[in-house]
Amino acid sequence: MAEPARRRGRGGGGAARRAERTAISIETAKYIERNIPNFEVLTEEALEIIEANAETVLEEIGVNFVDNPAALERWREAGADVQGERVRLPKGLARKLCATAPSQYTQHARNPEKSVVVGGRNLVLAPVYGPPFVRDVEGGRRYATMEDFRKFVKLGYMSKWLHHSGGTVCEPTDIPVNKRHLDMLHAHMTLSDKPFMGSVTAPERAQDSVEMCEILFGKDFVQENTVMTSLININSPMQFDDVMMGALEVYAKNNQAAIISPFIVGGAMAPVSVAGTLTQVLAEVLAGIAYSQLIRPGAPVIMGAFVTSIDMGSGAPTFGTPEAAHITYGAGQLARRLGLPYRSAGSFCGSKLPDAQAAYETANSLNMGLMSGVNFMLHSCGWLEGGLVSSFEKFVMDADQLGTLHGLAKGVSVDENAQAMDAIREVGPGGHYLGCAHTQANFKDAFWKTDLLDYKPFETWSEEGSKDTVALASERVKFLLDNYKQPSMDPGIAEALAGYVANKKASMPDSFT
Amino acid sequence: MAEPARRRGRGGGGAARRAERTAISIETAKYIERNIPNFEVLTEEALEIIEANAETVLEEIGVNFVDNPAALERWREAGADVQGERVRLPKGLARKLCATAPSQYTQHARNPEKSVVVGGRNLVLAPVYGPPFVRDVEGGRRYATMEDFRKFVKLGYMSKWLHHSGGTVCEPTDIPVNKRHLDMLHAHMTLSDKPFMGSVTAPERAQDSVEMCEILFGKDFVQENTVMTSLININSPMQFDDVMMGALEVYAKNNQAAIISPFIVGGAMAPVSVAGTLTQVLAEVLAGIAYSQLIRPGAPVIMGAFVTSIDMGSGAPTFGTPEAAHITYGAGQLARRLGLPYRSAGSFCGSKLPDAQAAYETANSLNMGLMSGVNFMLHSCGWLEGGLVSSFEKFVMDADQLGTLHGLAKGVSVDENAQAMDAIREVGPGGHYLGCAHTQANFKDAFWKTDLLDYKPFETWSEEGSKDTVALASERVKFLLDNYKQPSMDPGIAEALAGYVANKKASMPDSFT
Repeated sequence: MAEPARRRGRGGGGAARRAERTAISIETAKYIERNIPNFEVLTEEALEIIEANAETVLEEIGVNFVDNPAALERWREAGADVQGERVRLPKGLARKLCATAPSQYTQHARNPEKSVVVGGRNLVLAPVYGPPFVRDVEGGRRYATMEDFRKFVKLGYMSKWLHHSGGTVCEPTDIPVNKRHLDMLHAHMTLSDKPFMGSVTAPERAQDSVEMCEILFGKDFVQENTVMTSLININSPMQFDDVMMGALEVYAKNNQAAIISPFIVGGAMAPVSVAGTLTQVLAEVLAGIAYSQLIRPGAPVIMGAFVTSIDMGSGAPTFGTPEAAHITYGAGQLARRLGLPYRSAGSFCGSKLPDAQAAYETANSLNMGLMSGVNFMLHSCGWLEGGLVSSFEKFVMDADQLGTLHGLAKGVSVDENAQAMDAIREVGPGGHYLGCAHTQANFKDAFWKTDLLDYKPFETWSEEGSKDTVALASERVKFLLDNYKQPSMDPGIAEALAGYVANKKASMPDSFT
Repeated sequence: MAEPARRRGRGGGGAARRAERTAISIETAKYIERNIPNFEVLTEEALEIIEANAETVLEEIGVNFVDNPAALERWREAGADVQGERVRLPKGLARKLCATAPSQYTQHARNPEKSVVVGGRNLVLAPVYGPPFVRDVEGGRRYATMEDFRKFVKLGYMSKWLHHSGGTVCEPTDIPVNKRHLDMLHAHMTLSDKPFMGSVTAPERAQDSVEMCEILFGKDFVQENTVMTSLININSPMQFDDVMMGALEVYAKNNQAAIISPFIVGGAMAPVSVAGTLTQVLAEVLAGIAYSQLIRPGAPVIMGAFVTSIDMGSGAPTFGTPEAAHITYGAGQLARRLGLPYRSAGSFCGSKLPDAQAAYETANSLNMGLMSGVNFMLHSCGWLEGGLVSSFEKFVMDADQLGTLHGLAKGVSVDENAQAMDAIREVGPGGHYLGCAHTQANFKDAFWKTDLLDYKPFETWSEEGSKDTVALASERVKFLLDNYKQPSMDPGIAEALAGYVANKKASMPDSFT
């Protein structure tokens, strides 16, 4: 399944050979192509009820498009009932508009081997998005900086099971708010060769993202191809704000992909029940995706569903819970019936530390993500403390676990070699398989291999310092960063990108709000 | 779903009322009745290939029944080809014999509210089984004692999501090998009122288990009902030793249930491929279950599959891996086609500590256990270090996670209340659901609640000592043990059980081998 994209040490002679021997592999696995079924919790009857209710919500209650007269005008022209900022959609209108959205699309990477196809039975994995804080063993919890951001991009580049470089892997709080998107995009473009996300914090920053892509990929290429997938959150319940819609308008116009995603803590931004939440999720994405198709029919979009449960005692969001799983499974079914790519799940956890709580919650979420048919998984590694923190150690811990999803998705072969009848005959009752011909021929690829977890005997493990997972992860973070080598880039493009960033920054005063 | 079985403080007046207010709830949830589908990785074609191959294995290669002339004679009479200790079964014979095994059975507990039905769409959860070591934060890793054993039984009794008291929750290494089964059974019978397992380390110890049950439940009741489910391991590949078969013979004769279970580290005790391992698993359980029905047609049995993958570098077993999941899903499909209850999965992990590695591996295993249709999950909490260690902290950590399986299994309601259309109408775009009528009416039961995990804000959590999951679990272990109250028992039965144990112990010299 893996497409090797090894980079080797440069230079000649003995030094080069030594470098080659000690260089670590930085291959990137191909995005997951599932060979297993999706898990479905909703019956046909349940799906029909939810779909009918979503249409009722759109027609009877409607959605708000805030501070966006042009959007209201577009809706009016499309046949919606617009009163003030409230947009009510006659039954069937949103679904009809959504029909022009493609069922899958290719997001191109500057390294063509790392382009991804979003949709179908595929699963593309991208890292954590958005936290203002970072945490590692040495420095504890602190505000994120641009230097942290660059480290996360490097770790993502070095992570075999991560297909996508992501977007705001952490908020670089030391850079002015109105300029940090430039540094973030520059980091993704130059420190990695995987696909990435654009800025959504203002329409003009989305435009900057497009222009930087035109430098990186060429202007014609960008107009004809999708080179960014960006995250457009809906202000649940049922509000579409002008900032996010402004960014969506830029991306859709330019044929760039958007995840249109309700952002829901169940019980707060949606009903406390699974069926009620799914109804609202569907109504919201129908309205949002329909709007994207009003901007440009055929613009690539993903149906998103960021949905968690809540601790009703404290109001804190909770992760890895059964209710979040039900919603994730159900939303996957709704997305497939709409014929749209689906985004949900991630390395979600509420824990403050990358401890057992974090890992239980994350493993629950990652497994449901694979099984629910998610096509694009944002936050697939590095998320901590309800999304407030990007954790360096958890990034590599989760990224390692993403390998298990690749293994699971492969399904089960029953070809003659896999049947292994000769091995069973050779070994017989009371025998041992380790040395048999079939094992020798197959052991290298038979089992998923961790790059992190510890399987040593207790005595060896004790002698080596009784390291827990965080200690092992901390070592791996250092190892990866120490061995990072920047992917090469055409010097003209590199210069043009740096120039664009410098000019843009010089064109406006700093703003930290 | 829960059957409350609260115990309240005794005594009169204010003290009693105070005790009542501070007493913790020790209700036990009803075993899981799944309202979600099973996840199936094997196609019909793959299943047929594996089933045909298993018949070929039984006919052509056969299985060994070691040091057991009576078993060989039974097989000969049943139509098998017996040469030396090798038993070859003509195609279809084993499957035909298996047909008398019931598709489900009730295992009675001394508290009738805690009896469990094993089979169908149910899932019964039992704790870790077998480790010679225990670990906790204070004492570290050490040989297990009878005092540790009693603590685990108490924790199991206090765990809401645990339906079964289990068997050898740890090996009480301070008690002679030939006597420890008496103390272990006595602990399960007197310190808990949940169902339990019998001894399998010698036929006479299985007989002692039956006799102690006759004291606890009454002789007639035991002859007519199943009161134990015990673990009979197959010595994979394809060997049935006289100790385990001797215990099986005692239990089957007495209509007591047995899990007949291959014990496989893939690549060592079975082929390195999933399909090959499933073929061997099926051949082994067909032979073992057929043998149980030769002893007594209709004797209750469970098709077991303890299967892990291996780290081919070190030979260490590995847990929570995709290959183990494939085998677990596949074996579930094979069990359902045989019409037999299925045992697999558990809180499996290879980690030495209850850290993130342990939790990832465990969560992967628990989720696959639920989704694969497991009916009896041994090791569902407390397992550490590849099964060498019973961990006090991990016991309560895993036991808390078992609640998520209960929640997931409930499935999704779409009744009018769950549809929540009134809530969506009441709140509307831009509103907030926390205060709405639907939320107020439903929040108490809407979400699974942890008894352990931390959802506090960072500042509160820091002020309270920045506790990780293990620290929280350590506190919970102490809390549960401090609040443990022994379930009441008829004094005559208590005396008779103690007398039986004392007499048996006095009847033989200690043996530690």
